[in-house]
Amino acid sequence: RGRVLRPRRDPPGRGSAEVVATSERYAVRRLPFARLGDSDVAFFERVMPGRVVTGEEEVKPFNVDWLKSVRGCSQLVLKPQTTAEVSQVLRYCHERNLAVTPQGGNTGLVGGSVPVFDEIILSTALMNRIISFDKVSGILVCQAGCVLERLNEYLEEQGFIMPLDLGAKGSCHIGGNVATNAGGLRLLRYGSLRGTVLGLEVVLADGSALDCLASLRKDNTGYDLKQLFIGSEGTLGVITAVSILCPQKPKAVNVAFLGCQSFAKVLETFTTCRAMLGEILSAYEFMDEKCMELVERHLKLSSPVTGSPFYVLIETSGSNSTHDEEKLNNFLEQATASGLVTDGTVATDDKKIKASHLRERITEALTHDGYVYKYDISLPVGKLYDLVTDMRVRLGRSARNVVGYGHLGDGNLHLNVTSESYSHSLLDAIEPFVYEWTARCSGSISAEHGLGFKKKQFIQYSKPSEAVALMQRFKAMLDPKGILNPYKTLPSAP
Amino acid sequence: RGRVLRPRRDPPGRGSAEVVATSERYAVRRLPFARLGDSDVAFFERVMPGRVVTGEEEVKPFNVDWLKSVRGCSQLVLKPQTTAEVSQVLRYCHERNLAVTPQGGNTGLVGGSVPVFDEIILSTALMNRIISFDKVSGILVCQAGCVLERLNEYLEEQGFIMPLDLGAKGSCHIGGNVATNAGGLRLLRYGSLRGTVLGLEVVLADGSALDCLASLRKDNTGYDLKQLFIGSEGTLGVITAVSILCPQKPKAVNVAFLGCQSFAKVLETFTTCRAMLGEILSAYEFMDEKCMELVERHLKLSSPVTGSPFYVLIETSGSNSTHDEEKLNNFLEQATASGLVTDGTVATDDKKIKASHLRERITEALTHDGYVYKYDISLPVGKLYDLVTDMRVRLGRSARNVVGYGHLGDGNLHLNVTSESYSHSLLDAIEPFVYEWTARCSGSISAEHGLGFKKKQFIQYSKPSEAVALMQRFKAMLDPKGILNPYKTLPSAP
Repeated sequence: RGRVLRPRRDPPGRGSAEVVATSERYAVRRLPFARLGDSDVAFFERVMPGRVVTGEEEVKPFNVDWLKSVRGCSQLVLKPQTTAEVSQVLRYCHERNLAVTPQGGNTGLVGGSVPVFDEIILSTALMNRIISFDKVSGILVCQAGCVLERLNEYLEEQGFIMPLDLGAKGSCHIGGNVATNAGGLRLLRYGSLRGTVLGLEVVLADGSALDCLASLRKDNTGYDLKQLFIGSEGTLGVITAVSILCPQKPKAVNVAFLGCQSFAKVLETFTTCRAMLGEILSAYEFMDEKCMELVERHLKLSSPVTGSPFYVLIETSGSNSTHDEEKLNNFLEQATASGLVTDGTVATDDKKIKASHLRERITEALTHDGYVYKYDISLPVGKLYDLVTDMRVRLGRSARNVVGYGHLGDGNLHLNVTSESYSHSLLDAIEPFVYEWTARCSGSISAEHGLGFKKKQFIQYSKPSEAVALMQRFKAMLDPKGILNPYKTLPSAP
Repeated sequence: RGRVLRPRRDPPGRGSAEVVATSERYAVRRLPFARLGDSDVAFFERVMPGRVVTGEEEVKPFNVDWLKSVRGCSQLVLKPQTTAEVSQVLRYCHERNLAVTPQGGNTGLVGGSVPVFDEIILSTALMNRIISFDKVSGILVCQAGCVLERLNEYLEEQGFIMPLDLGAKGSCHIGGNVATNAGGLRLLRYGSLRGTVLGLEVVLADGSALDCLASLRKDNTGYDLKQLFIGSEGTLGVITAVSILCPQKPKAVNVAFLGCQSFAKVLETFTTCRAMLGEILSAYEFMDEKCMELVERHLKLSSPVTGSPFYVLIETSGSNSTHDEEKLNNFLEQATASGLVTDGTVATDDKKIKASHLRERITEALTHDGYVYKYDISLPVGKLYDLVTDMRVRLGRSARNVVGYGHLGDGNLHLNVTSESYSHSLLDAIEPFVYEWTARCSGSISAEHGLGFKKKQFIQYSKPSEAVALMQRFKAMLDPKGILNPYKTLPSAP
C-alpha cells in the first residue's frame, strides 16, 4: 500500500485568513515538470487574448478549494472558449512538459480541482454554450462549462429537467459533474451519469480531440471510450462537451419529512415506501438528529418535525398529482399506523422548499461547526448507520460532533466528524479505522465524491491491486508524460 | 477505411443442410495462432475432466450462429464451471498462442459468438450459479452463464425482475448480454446495462482475474474499468460474473396495441403517450404492416388490430393498477379523439401475451421469409422510418420484402430486407447505401446488436478514425497477442 499523505500541521478552519499550501502541508514532492516562463504566457496570450489570468490575487480563488482545505500555487489561469483552444493549450503543454489542472466550478470535496504545486489551471468557465436540445428525444448537447442550475432552468422552460441535482448546482459545471461522476439527489430515480451521458467530446493530453459526442440513446459500435473519462477527475483528458439524456419535468413533486425512532425503522420505512410509491419515488434521504441540530444552530433553519433520533426526507415526482398524492397518503397512513413513523409532515409548496433546504444545507452547517473530517461511504444499507454509532463510541469526547446523513436509497452515507480545530490525534483515531471498517463490509471509501488529492492513497481499501495497476496502465497510455491533473486519483508510486 | 468483407457465394437459407464456412465465404485470412494439438486437449482434460468437447458432431452447434449465417471450424469446446478454470485456460492459451472465442447462449445476430477459423470455444454454459441476491437493495450477483429467463424467474419469486428483456431470453446468458451491451424491450424504462451493471469479474487474455464485482450502487474510487468490458464482445476479456441492479417487479402491467395511419402519427402518439403515461411507460415499440403480414403468414399468429399501415405496442409497468389503468385510458381516449390512433385494443391478461408475442417473434418470422439482410440502426426518431421508405423505393422489386420495426422510444430501428436467396447484387444495392444514409444523420450502424464479425468493417461510419485507433490501442494493451475473439469488433488493419 502506498504511503499515506497526512497534514503536517494544523490547517486553519473555514474562517481563517490563509490556507496552508498543500505542497507544504502534505509531504508531497513536485514532479519534474517544466516551469512556466514568460514565453509560455505570451504563447497563451496569442491563443486566447484577454483570457489569460496571471495576477496573484486574480489567480488565488482558483488555487483554493471550496472547503478551503487545500491550496495550490498556480500562477496562471487559462479560460478557453472553444475545443480548438483547449487542443492548442494541451498540445503546447504536452510538448513543453507543463502540468495542467482542469477546473470546472471548483466545488469538489476531495481537492481534485485545484493544483497541488504550480500546475496551469485550465478553467471551463467560458465554455458555457448550449449546443442543441431535442424536445422529442430529450437529448441536450452543451459545452463543459455550463452551470448545472442554468442548464436545469433552460430545460424546465421546455418541460424537461437535468437527470442530476446536487447542493453545488449553482456553481458546478456539467463537465466537472461528468469528470467526477457526480451522484446527488436524483440518482435514485434517474440512475447514474454512466447511463444518462450519451456522448462526450474530450481533448487528450497530447492535444488531440476525441469526438464521441453522439446524441443517440443506443450505440454499440466498438468500445465505449467515453466511459473511461466519466469519473476520471481530469486525469485522462479534458471534457469539452457533453451529450446527456434528460427526463421530462415531472408535473407533480411532493415532499414528506418524517421522524423515525430508530435506524431500523428508517430502513423498514424505505422498504415500505419503495413498494407503495414505486415508480414515483425520486429521493429517500435520511439524517440523524445531530444534523438537524447543527442546521438549526448554525443556519437558524427550523425543522418541520422535531424530537426524533432520525429524520427521513421523501420526494416523489410523477405525471399525475392526484395519483401521486393518493399514493403518498396511502403510504403515510400505513407508515404511521404501523408505527414506523412517529411524526411527519407533507410539504406544501412553501414548506417543500424549506424541507429540501434543510437537507441540502447540512454540508454548509457543518463547516460552521469547526474543522470537518468528511467521509463519503457506500455500504450495504443494513449496515449504513452502524459505522456512525461505532465511530461515535470510538471517538467519545475527542470529537465535537459525529453526524450521519445521506442518500439511503443508494446505500450512500455521509459521515462527518467535527472538532474545534484540526487535530492530528483525532485524525489518527478516525483513519484508517473508517476505511478498514468500510473494506470489511466490501463498501466503497468514496461513493460519489471521488478520490481527488485527499483520498487517492486509500483507493486500495476499495479496489484490488490488480485493478489499480490496470488503471495506472490506462493513465500511462493516455497521458504518458503525466501532465493532466498530476497527484490526483491514483496513488503515488510506492 | 478497411477492406469490406463480402460473401463470395450464395449462402444457403435457414433450411439448408450446411452453412458455408465463414473462412471460405469471406476473403479473410487466418492469423498465425498456434494450432491445437493432442497435448493441448490433454491439458484441458486435466483442468476440467469430462467438460472438454471434441467430437465433430458435438462441437458443430457451437460453430454455427443462431441465424445459421456464419460457421467456424473449431475442434474444441471447453465448459469451465469456475473463474479459476477460465483463468487456467486463458493462461495456457496465452502462453501457447492459441486463439479463443468466448460463447454464451450463442444468440448474437452479427456473428460475434462463433469462431471464424479453429479458435477454441470457451462456453459459459456450466457457469450458471446465482451467487447472491439482496432483497433490500435489489442487487443480484451471479455467474456469467446464467440464462436471462431463469434469472428473471428467480427474481420474480422475490418480487423483482431483471432490468433487461429480449427475444432471446430463453437461451441468452447474462455474461453474453453484458459482453454485447444488450438493449431490448425494457431499456426505455430501466436504462442501459452501463447504468444497471454494478460490477464484473473478468478474466483477461493472460489469465489474470480482475475482480470488479462490487455490489454497490455508487463507487467513485478510480476509473470504472468494468465499463470497457461491457459491449466489448469478448475481445478484451472473458466476463465470468456479473453484479446487477434489479428493479422491483411491477404490480401492474398493461399492454395496448394500436393502429396508426402514418409514421408521423406514430411519433405524435409517442410524444402524447410519454407526457400522459410518464413514469409508468415501459415500452414503446412500433412495426409496419409488412411485419404483421409476415408474422401472420409464417407463424399463423393473428394481429388483434388490422388494416393500419403502422402498429404501436405500448407497455406500462407500475405499482398501482387502478392508477395505471386510469392513465392508460385517459391517454387512449385522447389519442383516439384527436385522431392519432384509428384502432386499438387494451390487452387483458390473455391477449397481453399475444400482443407482446407478435412483437417478439418478428425476427423469427423474417427467417421464414427467405434470406434476411439485417440492419440495426440508431437514428434521430423523426427520421427513423424515412430510411425504410427510401430503401423500399431504391430496391423496388429486387427485394421480396423491406420491413421496419423497433424500439421507437430509444430511436432504434430494425430494418430488414428479405429475398428468395442471397443475392450479391441486392447486397450491393443495400450496402453501403444504408450505412451512408445512417452516417449522414449521425446515426449508429449498430444500435444494440454490436459489430461482431459481420459489421466490424463498417465501424467508421459511426466512429471517427481517432476513436477506432484508440480502441485498437486498448485492445493491444489488454490482449497483446490478440488471442481473444479474433476477427471481431474492430476492423482488420488496412
